[in-house]
Amino acid sequence: MAYLDKITSPRDIKTMTTPELETLAEEIRAGILNRDSKIGGHVGPNLGIVETTIALHYVFNSPQDKIVFDVSHQSYPHKMLTGRQKGFTNDAKMLKISGYTNPQESKHDFFIVGHTSTSVSLACGLAKARDIKGEKHNVIALIGDGSLSGGEALEGLSNAAVLNSNIIIIVNDNEMSIAENHGGLYTNLSLLRQTGGAAECNMFKALGFDYHYVEEGNSLPALIEKLQQLKDTPRPTILHVHTLKGKGYKPAVENKERWHWNLPFDIKSGTVTIPSEGENYNDITFAYLNSKIKQDKDVVVLTAGTPGAFGLTPERREQFGPNYVDVGIAEEHAIAMSSALAKGGCKPVFYVMSSFLQRTYDQLSQDLALNNNPAVILVFSGAISGMDATHLGCFDIPLTSNIPNLVCLAPTTKQEYLAMLDWSLKQRRHPVVIRVPIRVTTSNETVPANYDELNTFQVVHQGKQVALLAAGNFFELGRQTAAQLQKHGIDATLINPRFLSGLDEKCLHELENDHRIIVTLEDGVLDGGFGEKIARFYGPSSVKVLNYGAFKEFPDRIPVTELYQRYRLTPEQITADILRLG
Amino acid sequence: MAYLDKITSPRDIKTMTTPELETLAEEIRAGILNRDSKIGGHVGPNLGIVETTIALHYVFNSPQDKIVFDVSHQSYPHKMLTGRQKGFTNDAKMLKISGYTNPQESKHDFFIVGHTSTSVSLACGLAKARDIKGEKHNVIALIGDGSLSGGEALEGLSNAAVLNSNIIIIVNDNEMSIAENHGGLYTNLSLLRQTGGAAECNMFKALGFDYHYVEEGNSLPALIEKLQQLKDTPRPTILHVHTLKGKGYKPAVENKERWHWNLPFDIKSGTVTIPSEGENYNDITFAYLNSKIKQDKDVVVLTAGTPGAFGLTPERREQFGPNYVDVGIAEEHAIAMSSALAKGGCKPVFYVMSSFLQRTYDQLSQDLALNNNPAVILVFSGAISGMDATHLGCFDIPLTSNIPNLVCLAPTTKQEYLAMLDWSLKQRRHPVVIRVPIRVTTSNETVPANYDELNTFQVVHQGKQVALLAAGNFFELGRQTAAQLQKHGIDATLINPRFLSGLDEKCLHELENDHRIIVTLEDGVLDGGFGEKIARFYGPSSVKVLNYGAFKEFPDRIPVTELYQRYRLTPEQITADILRLG
Repeated sequence: MAYLDKITSPRDIKTMTTPELETLAEEIRAGILNRDSKIGGHVGPNLGIVETTIALHYVFNSPQDKIVFDVSHQSYPHKMLTGRQKGFTNDAKMLKISGYTNPQESKHDFFIVGHTSTSVSLACGLAKARDIKGEKHNVIALIGDGSLSGGEALEGLSNAAVLNSNIIIIVNDNEMSIAENHGGLYTNLSLLRQTGGAAECNMFKALGFDYHYVEEGNSLPALIEKLQQLKDTPRPTILHVHTLKGKGYKPAVENKERWHWNLPFDIKSGTVTIPSEGENYNDITFAYLNSKIKQDKDVVVLTAGTPGAFGLTPERREQFGPNYVDVGIAEEHAIAMSSALAKGGCKPVFYVMSSFLQRTYDQLSQDLALNNNPAVILVFSGAISGMDATHLGCFDIPLTSNIPNLVCLAPTTKQEYLAMLDWSLKQRRHPVVIRVPIRVTTSNETVPANYDELNTFQVVHQGKQVALLAAGNFFELGRQTAAQLQKHGIDATLINPRFLSGLDEKCLHELENDHRIIVTLEDGVLDGGFGEKIARFYGPSSVKVLNYGAFKEFPDRIPVTELYQRYRLTPEQITADILRLG
Repeated sequence: MAYLDKITSPRDIKTMTTPELETLAEEIRAGILNRDSKIGGHVGPNLGIVETTIALHYVFNSPQDKIVFDVSHQSYPHKMLTGRQKGFTNDAKMLKISGYTNPQESKHDFFIVGHTSTSVSLACGLAKARDIKGEKHNVIALIGDGSLSGGEALEGLSNAAVLNSNIIIIVNDNEMSIAENHGGLYTNLSLLRQTGGAAECNMFKALGFDYHYVEEGNSLPALIEKLQQLKDTPRPTILHVHTLKGKGYKPAVENKERWHWNLPFDIKSGTVTIPSEGENYNDITFAYLNSKIKQDKDVVVLTAGTPGAFGLTPERREQFGPNYVDVGIAEEHAIAMSSALAKGGCKPVFYVMSSFLQRTYDQLSQDLALNNNPAVILVFSGAISGMDATHLGCFDIPLTSNIPNLVCLAPTTKQEYLAMLDWSLKQRRHPVVIRVPIRVTTSNETVPANYDELNTFQVVHQGKQVALLAAGNFFELGRQTAAQLQKHGIDATLINPRFLSGLDEKCLHELENDHRIIVTLEDGVLDGGFGEKIARFYGPSSVKVLNYGAFKEFPDRIPVTELYQRYRLTPEQITADILRLG
């Protein structure tokens, strides 16, 4: 690394020649591949944005000039130019640097970001603050074409256009969202690319932006020249750059979807180096829905820009045929459309990650629940996890289960999941949210096919003194705790609540007869969750309640075993607490 | 009413002549004014859309052809043409008909709608369902220019454009949101109006829509001709109609903002007939912020399209000067921008209605709370109320208080509110949500100026046996309940929790010493709220907890006194429950 190692701040690149910067670009690419091949991460987005990032830091003066990265999954080159290159070149340092921007890591980062479509609004706020305070500097948002389709980005664009001041929005157009793009926006981006930015029908100009285009979005001289021209503009400005996603790494260029994000891999072959973990809910869900669609043409599968996260490869999407819709990164639209599909007689199934379901609270409430239409929402990755603070899946129980009319289910086994999914498509009375389990466990016990009688808990084992209400992913923890209690002479009752959105009052009242302690276990944040409803139910009684789940916090890449310890989520800790309570 | 009274279904108007339809239009306008003058409601939007609605029902065949109304605050003419005219002409029947669409009222309504920007996505779902099921009919969304700026509408537009099938989106352009429009979208709508729809730079065409324009949006012949041309189009189509908001009622035309929605009024003079209720939090907040901005130029006030709801008249907005930003109907943008304004050193204060804050869960969580920037959010109308099911303000406590880092405050008096607001602008460590009280009560007691020590509850009266934790609006209910208990010889402790987002564990532990029953009172839904956190805290103890608040449901225009009875929220009911518990 002739150049990268020596960079201490972005100033260091300002005196470099173009050939030197081009060598630097290669070194940065090697850094991206080194990190991603070792610990996994975003590949294509970072490889494509190397030259833009170098040009930005060459022309502008960070951190006085402020660059806001959308999603910030493409901020690796920026990190390497702002003193964090060891997180890419030194294996031992990698985990110290996150895959997203974070002001705690560097003064060149302004926000912790991990969800899409936020950069324009955030940049608007920085620009307005600058103007209010009478400061002078550039504010730049860097947003990918895929992120443009999110409502927040579109609200931001409309507002940025009338800011009447300096704001430069770089649209990094690599012709791809995570998967292929969907939506009319892309019709226009395509026209603009085809015409070298010259088409008169230009949505950015329509909004009132100054508009510029760089076809050679991986050419340093072209980018530097254009950015020098735009620097200090007094006007809201779009710079549309056409880049190559995955540039510099053949596998990533050839299969852009697969290489958007990748597990650790062998650089030479591109093969993933982590063994796959056997049966998973992506495959199970696809197998079920694909067979279902063949029998019932009313079933419609929806995703919002992230089909790959659910194992919905292009081949699988193809198999769904016209009964599959990807709406692009537009979760709000997906929920509203699902509600209306159900109203129109279809059976929509919307796949969504727990963390991204957060974008749809009002659509869940108003468009779906208030209308009580029978759409099905499959929530994936809903669990306490070691994820980045921006992608936690521990908030969806409070998010969904406190909205009237939504039926929220927490299956515990593969059999129960499939039975609940099947029921949710059969019934026509409720919108249903299913929290897809994390680990595949199977059971030989018969699972009911019908869940029409809402909020009926299942008593799996009838004991006494202590009852464990162990929901979804944490049913197994309940079973383990019961085993632990047995060692102390306590024959605990074990209950699978199945429903997170309502209580089985009959069951709970019966427990009062011969139970002193009720324990709830849920794989998510405690505040506003399932356990608190149980605590409220027993509030007026003499039964004691212990609630287990996550604390209200944003843990950042803390190993899940450490979080379990912190939250007292091991069978030993729970047993100790129960014994202490007497 | 020569015509209106006789209409039993939209079919009845298909044989009418243009002059007859024009007379019908006048009758409909009289119906709108009659209803609004008696019970209040949306004035300008309904008066402006009369001809469009008649033309729609003249040309299309509802309910086979499906019309989706955005917000549906402009659905009065539609209601009158679909058998519900008595809700407008007969005073005794008015309250039976809501101000919004509702499938339970009529087969011509497809959704319960009251929030903006949802119609295009809902129409997309109906259109896709039609295509999946092989049906043939038109799907029409009617959306105002003001609603276009919401992210969900923009996501919907981008998706509708690639539907490759029949969907007709009528953009009702009356050159106004609730107040004036803000955003680049309006730059383009203005250009299109000026060019009679001919400008090449057209955001709708850019997205891929067929685009049509009708300048005379209140001319029945012009509208009918155009709609006949568009009927059964196989293409995603925009019909941009230029209408006059408030048409036919001079006061509403002359002051469009004031007449968007109005309290009951005298038709002749336009004067509101309900006496104003004395001091209110709109005036209190304005007076405070206006004086604050004069001293501190870093304070920035934001609204999202509804300044009038907070008493921010044009004159008051003018006084804020450059320190005021209305972002249009774009709540997500408002939260993200607030976070960034705070990051940039400003002191943003975002005014928002509880019901519309629901649109921003992810922005509250990711853009604001995760970044821990010191923005201030003033939540208005957060309370159990007799509102329409689409505008309830009872869900914001679970929405905000379960997000890490957000400090949620519930002031109980004017003095406490102002002290908390002042503190929230002084401190630089937390994003702060203040639930603005509903009724103005004052207190002579000293209120602390500093809330740095989070989650400190205030013991207002130290008693024993029973403690009442009475939050925000319900502090007064706590006081009344304490008085009631006194009659039964119980000297209850009265506590103002002040914070909704965390517990004062020291205070709660101390209560355990000499209290047997802890009662929580909150003016919102119980599920996921404040009381459940108290129940969880005391779960392992022998202290009994009674939680009071709203049930998880969407009550629709139920008088608040009836809801209080239903939820057992009177001092007598609460006292009876406490005595029963022993």
